[in-house]
Amino acid sequence: RTRTEVLFFPSEMVCLEHIFAPSSPQSCCCSLPHGVETSFTRLVRCILSASSSLDVCVFAFSNMDLCKAVLTLRCRGVTIRVLCDKDYAAIHGSQIGVLRRAGICARCDVGSVYMHHKFAVVDNRLLITGSLNWTMTAVQSNKENVIVTEDPHLVGPFLKEFQRLWLHSDAA
Amino acid sequence: RTRTEVLFFPSEMVCLEHIFAPSSPQSCCCSLPHGVETSFTRLVRCILSASSSLDVCVFAFSNMDLCKAVLTLRCRGVTIRVLCDKDYAAIHGSQIGVLRRAGICARCDVGSVYMHHKFAVVDNRLLITGSLNWTMTAVQSNKENVIVTEDPHLVGPFLKEFQRLWLHSDAA
Ligand SMILES: [Zn+2]
Ligand SMILES: [Zn+2]
Repeated sequence: RTRTEVLFFPSEMVCLEHIFAPSSPQSCCCSLPHGVETSFTRLVRCILSASSSLDVCVFAFSNMDLCKAVLTLRCRGVTIRVLCDKDYAAIHGSQIGVLRRAGICARCDVGSVYMHHKFAVVDNRLLITGSLNWTMTAVQSNKENVIVTEDPHLVGPFLKEFQRLWLHSDAA
Repeated sequence: RTRTEVLFFPSEMVCLEHIFAPSSPQSCCCSLPHGVETSFTRLVRCILSASSSLDVCVFAFSNMDLCKAVLTLRCRGVTIRVLCDKDYAAIHGSQIGVLRRAGICARCDVGSVYMHHKFAVVDNRLLITGSLNWTMTAVQSNKENVIVTEDPHLVGPFLKEFQRLWLHSDAA
C-alpha cells in the first residue's frame, strides 16, 4: 500500500542539525536535545525529501526552520512555488520576503477573504496537509495535525487545486 | 479500496432542505438554489451519515447548518462528543452553548494555546479533516480543503488523538 502517516503537534523543540547537516554529526553545541526525532523533524524531513519540485500553499509562513528547508531545496535546484494569503504575507515575521529575495517564486492569493489552506506537495507525489500553519506557534504550542500521504486519490485533487489557485494568484 | 474524497471551498450557497428533509421535496420557497449538490452539501451528508457516534474536534464551531446537522443526529440517538478551543467557544456566535442546551456533551480544550484541529470522526470509521473551521466564513468565503476518508491508517491515529484530547479536556 502507499505511504501514509499522521503527525500530531505541538512538537518538542529539538536541534535540527542532524536533519540539515547529516554528514557532520555532533558539531552543534546549542542547548536543545540533539539527534531526537519528533513530529517536526518528520515534517522537515518530508519537505527536504523533494528532488524535483515543491509546491507550498499555506495561509501563514513565518517559521524560520521551514523557511530554511525551502532555501536548502532551492540551493539543490528544486523548483519551488509558494502561495500564501496576501494579508498574512504582509505581517511582521512572514518569510515571503526572505523567499523572494532568494529568487523563489512566491505569490499571494488575490481573493478578498482567507486563503486558508495549509498544504504542500513534494515532487508531485507526496502530499503534506492538515491544520498546521507554517509558524512557530503552530509547531511548538498548538494542538495540530498533519497528514503525509502518497495516496494518489488525495495527492491528485490537491495538485489540481494548487495549479488552479496558482494561475489565479498575484505574482507581485 | 477504501473511500476517499477531497472537498474544496468556498462552496456556493444552496438550500439544504433536500439534505435535512429528503422525504418532503420541493416544499421550501426560499430564494437559494434547490436540489443542488456542492462541497458543503457533501460535507453535511457525511456528517448526517452517522448512525452510532460522532466525535467533533474543531477550533471554531459557529456554523448554524453544521449545528443543525449535529442536533439532527442527537434526535436520532447518535452519541455525540464535541471538543472546541476554549477561547473560541466563548465568543459571540459559537454554537457550543446551543449544543450543551440540547444535552450534547461539549467540552473545551484546557491548554493555554490553540486547539487548532478541524476534524470529525463518524461511527469510528469515517474521518473528516482539513483546513475548514465549522464557521460560515470558512464554508462560504475562504479557500479551504476537507478530506473525507475511511482509510484506517488515517482514521486510527485521529480517533486515538481525539480520545487523548477528550480525556484532558474541561467538561465545564
Ligand atoms: Zn544543536
Ligand atoms: Zn429552500
